[in-house]
Amino acid sequence: MSQQRPIVFGVAGGTASGKTTVARNVLHAVGASTVAYLPHDAYYRDNPHLTLEERAQQNYDHPRSLENKLLVQHIKLLLDGKAVRVPVYDFTLHRRTDETVLVEPSPIILVDGILIFTRRKLRELMDIKIFVDTADDVRFIRRLKRDMEERGRSLDSVIEQYLTTVRPMHMKFVEPSKEFADIIIPHGGENKVAMEMVVSRLRELLSPLP
Amino acid sequence: MSQQRPIVFGVAGGTASGKTTVARNVLHAVGASTVAYLPHDAYYRDNPHLTLEERAQQNYDHPRSLENKLLVQHIKLLLDGKAVRVPVYDFTLHRRTDETVLVEPSPIILVDGILIFTRRKLRELMDIKIFVDTADDVRFIRRLKRDMEERGRSLDSVIEQYLTTVRPMHMKFVEPSKEFADIIIPHGGENKVAMEMVVSRLRELLSPLP
Repeated sequence: MSQQRPIVFGVAGGTASGKTTVARNVLHAVGASTVAYLPHDAYYRDNPHLTLEERAQQNYDHPRSLENKLLVQHIKLLLDGKAVRVPVYDFTLHRRTDETVLVEPSPIILVDGILIFTRRKLRELMDIKIFVDTADDVRFIRRLKRDMEERGRSLDSVIEQYLTTVRPMHMKFVEPSKEFADIIIPHGGENKVAMEMVVSRLRELLSPLP
Repeated sequence: MSQQRPIVFGVAGGTASGKTTVARNVLHAVGASTVAYLPHDAYYRDNPHLTLEERAQQNYDHPRSLENKLLVQHIKLLLDGKAVRVPVYDFTLHRRTDETVLVEPSPIILVDGILIFTRRKLRELMDIKIFVDTADDVRFIRRLKRDMEERGRSLDSVIEQYLTTVRPMHMKFVEPSKEFADIIIPHGGENKVAMEMVVSRLRELLSPLP
């Protein structure tokens, strides 16, 4: 089993679509030790030359805000059986920290993020591309609750950011990238039938039938 | 394996979306003897009181044109381990024939058709609901070629029927029923990654892991 080429499994979808739930279900079902997890948002570019205020104003929903080349390189290293050091991003300071997380080569390489299907070089590395599709208004409501409850944001600031960058970038980049998905999962990560199908395929790939 | 409750597997999608390719792939992968196949369009209502011309004018893209109660009854009989006699429809005469096809109870009950997710009683019987999603213009082109080449229809008559009933009924009934799908397969039945996922799940359900 460990001699097989790892499976690169991509999970995309809009903000608060349920990507993390899908990823967590996969980890739970196949076992965390089987999965090398590369979240796209760990790869935000570092902008040390900008002030904190300038950094806070950056458009973090644009594909350019991420160091896609480094992510591509890490996937290739894992495919070659080499461990990688995934950056750790500080979302409060909008800076990449000095820390890294060591990720060992594993049978499944799980990549998630809203923009992972927008770059051809990333898509070409993926064996299975899943788009978690949840209605735009439902996603906004989830994000609003999460940002207010867990991140102490105000209603106005969440709406302002949503309308200024999150929504326009979703329409421009995320939604059109659905085109590249192999499977679209409606109703997010709570969709049990879809999750069972995904996990079943991963299990089959991990231990092929005789 | 034969003692398990059969799995009811529904495949919907617009006209010429690739439903039949998906169904054929499933039959091929799990073996035709494992599948009881119930195509929705075998259940078109018989209208013996109408003239051929009147019958030709009927709207065959409306859910009412199908005898859904009979299909529901057949699925339930198969679930109870009883064989059913599926009607045979004559698409030239727009009549149900006197013939039937004997369908034996099988581990998988495969139901396909553009309108199978529009009826709650049908949906509730299905364990896995798949919607094959292909772009509207691509579907029209496929239907046009098929109707002209295989059915000897004229360009004008295909366009006329498409704009008069096929398209309006698609927008009114088929497209909204996508909402009920567990999984959406883009790019029709040629989508290999999606097909492998579907078949993998069916195989797992047929012979559960120890």
